[in-house]
Amino acid sequence: MIYLDHAATTPPSKAAKAAALRSFNMFGNPSSLHVLGIEAEKEIAHARDVLARIIGASPPRLIFASGGTEANNLALKGTARKHKGRRIITTRMEHSSILETLAVMADFEPLYLDTDEGGAICLDALQKALEEPTCLVSIHHVNSATGVIQDIHAIGNIIKRVSPTTLFHVDAAQSFCKLPIHVNNMQVDLLTASAHKVGGLKGCGFLFIRDGVHCAPTTQGGGQERGLRSGTENVAGILSFAAAAESFMPITAPLKQVFLDALNLDDVKVLGKNTSPYILNIDVAGVNPEVLLNALSQRGVCVSAGAACSANKKGQGQIGWGQAPTLRVSFGEGNTVDEVVKAAELLTEIATNLRKLRKL
Amino acid sequence: MIYLDHAATTPPSKAAKAAALRSFNMFGNPSSLHVLGIEAEKEIAHARDVLARIIGASPPRLIFASGGTEANNLALKGTARKHKGRRIITTRMEHSSILETLAVMADFEPLYLDTDEGGAICLDALQKALEEPTCLVSIHHVNSATGVIQDIHAIGNIIKRVSPTTLFHVDAAQSFCKLPIHVNNMQVDLLTASAHKVGGLKGCGFLFIRDGVHCAPTTQGGGQERGLRSGTENVAGILSFAAAAESFMPITAPLKQVFLDALNLDDVKVLGKNTSPYILNIDVAGVNPEVLLNALSQRGVCVSAGAACSANKKGQGQIGWGQAPTLRVSFGEGNTVDEVVKAAELLTEIATNLRKLRKL
Repeated sequence: MIYLDHAATTPPSKAAKAAALRSFNMFGNPSSLHVLGIEAEKEIAHARDVLARIIGASPPRLIFASGGTEANNLALKGTARKHKGRRIITTRMEHSSILETLAVMADFEPLYLDTDEGGAICLDALQKALEEPTCLVSIHHVNSATGVIQDIHAIGNIIKRVSPTTLFHVDAAQSFCKLPIHVNNMQVDLLTASAHKVGGLKGCGFLFIRDGVHCAPTTQGGGQERGLRSGTENVAGILSFAAAAESFMPITAPLKQVFLDALNLDDVKVLGKNTSPYILNIDVAGVNPEVLLNALSQRGVCVSAGAACSANKKGQGQIGWGQAPTLRVSFGEGNTVDEVVKAAELLTEIATNLRKLRKL
Repeated sequence: MIYLDHAATTPPSKAAKAAALRSFNMFGNPSSLHVLGIEAEKEIAHARDVLARIIGASPPRLIFASGGTEANNLALKGTARKHKGRRIITTRMEHSSILETLAVMADFEPLYLDTDEGGAICLDALQKALEEPTCLVSIHHVNSATGVIQDIHAIGNIIKRVSPTTLFHVDAAQSFCKLPIHVNNMQVDLLTASAHKVGGLKGCGFLFIRDGVHCAPTTQGGGQERGLRSGTENVAGILSFAAAAESFMPITAPLKQVFLDALNLDDVKVLGKNTSPYILNIDVAGVNPEVLLNALSQRGVCVSAGAACSANKKGQGQIGWGQAPTLRVSFGEGNTVDEVVKAAELLTEIATNLRKLRKL
């Protein structure tokens, strides 16, 4: 099996698995007053420290949730009502947990920024849009479909210069641990990260909420996570998230270029400019990407068509900026140059055959 | 260590740990179209079958969530607005995820039923309360603090006879796998269960939603769980929940009686009548239960004062019906008669010494 779908989810790392196993023996409810409860609470505090350090945040500002989707819901629903302005500035390329959340926030007016040919949002348009009272700007750091990196530093600068009270939320699900993030330098008020994109387990994520940002909980109950996210803490998920993040090994080989060099096909277009080293999105002319995906899967290669964060097995989310679906190849820890070459050769063979069939 | 706090959380069972480990190799995103994604999706479908069978439900009616708290939030917020009547009938002894959720549902009028001396809700009062248009009745099956069992069958009968359109929600966090549940026989429309109360992992639970019940999602995103609960599925949590439930071993020894028989103290009152075999709640006159809890913890015995589902380490939730805090001793798989006797003897020793100190 050659797994090249790390943007959808990553295999749990060794460190994450070890932390999960360790948590099974530390099974107290972190809210319990006895020694087992206190032990679990301390371990969670340590995990919070580890994760906060990676984004330059103060640990108490990290709220653990059940994943990036819940964190994005909390970021938008929890804060918008508490801040001035009905406008929310975003893009049409956000994750469905942003777009669908905005769709139910009837009191607010989303404004979707355009992007240039390379996929970067238009900073002039952002500046102009901020002239209307805006409670929140929500922009992803790395696009899950194309890998295009948004200039969070520049965006943060513009927001805080033009409209200092406007909150800045960044969905960093595809960049956490992979690109440098510093919430102060980038002037980010809210930031979402997901465990299972960096070698942690599915079912865990966090929302960073800057000190002083008013946020209302979206889930009511026992008052865990400083009252912002009730529910007994997912101890295994949290500890393995921190372990995975702490031991995260960035890919160093230029796997995207290796893949493209080994691809022996005409009419292949690489989508996006200034993209993450972890995500490659290609349009193979004349071939349906879902057919390619299935054929590759049968040969033991896992890739994606678009972003695999939608349950409905059709479409799988927005590909980027209005194009037809394309093929996403995404890399991660453990991928070798050899298997990447092998995958590109298989894709070459399959696509060549499909094109031949088409011409018959 | 003698762990007698199973109502707060249980150690993961062998089967749950094995299922979690297995899930680490089956790491595809269930929404992915390739072989690893399809494999994960099939495993989730199997887990849903296993869990649904335990409550006599049709598998598609189970919605996985991040735990009992989220399931309770969804049960109330998701359905109330979609059904006739502004009244919600409940008790003051519900879990904080019910009480705090009702507190933010400003458009609704909660009506809290009284209970008798034994802790059972007054069925006549329920019948009378249903004369006003009522969208929802939410009653727990087993009280987490006292273990008192509510007669869900009788309650369901009354609701559906007096007001057939009123929804009936049951928080079964403390009874799932432990007491017989059949959602059809009991005329239950919505039912909450939590994995970590039956040997599963923290961070997973489900809400049963009867076919035909209108429910709106509380989390927006990729449309997982039939659109009712978006977010990449917690595969390890779900598979280990099903494995734990399937292999759940009910306690057969009369551990509560063993504990009480070994307790050599005057002025001990057992709270509640008709209680679960898993939960014992006692009032040891003249001794602060939190002092007892700490002293027992230092001697290696884990118990609780009230219900340990509140993050704030003070108070830990409502104990039942207006009494001062008391000591909760809760049993589970693996507890032996010997360790239960040992715990009772230690409690006897500690309480006797504390009472002596008080008299000095």
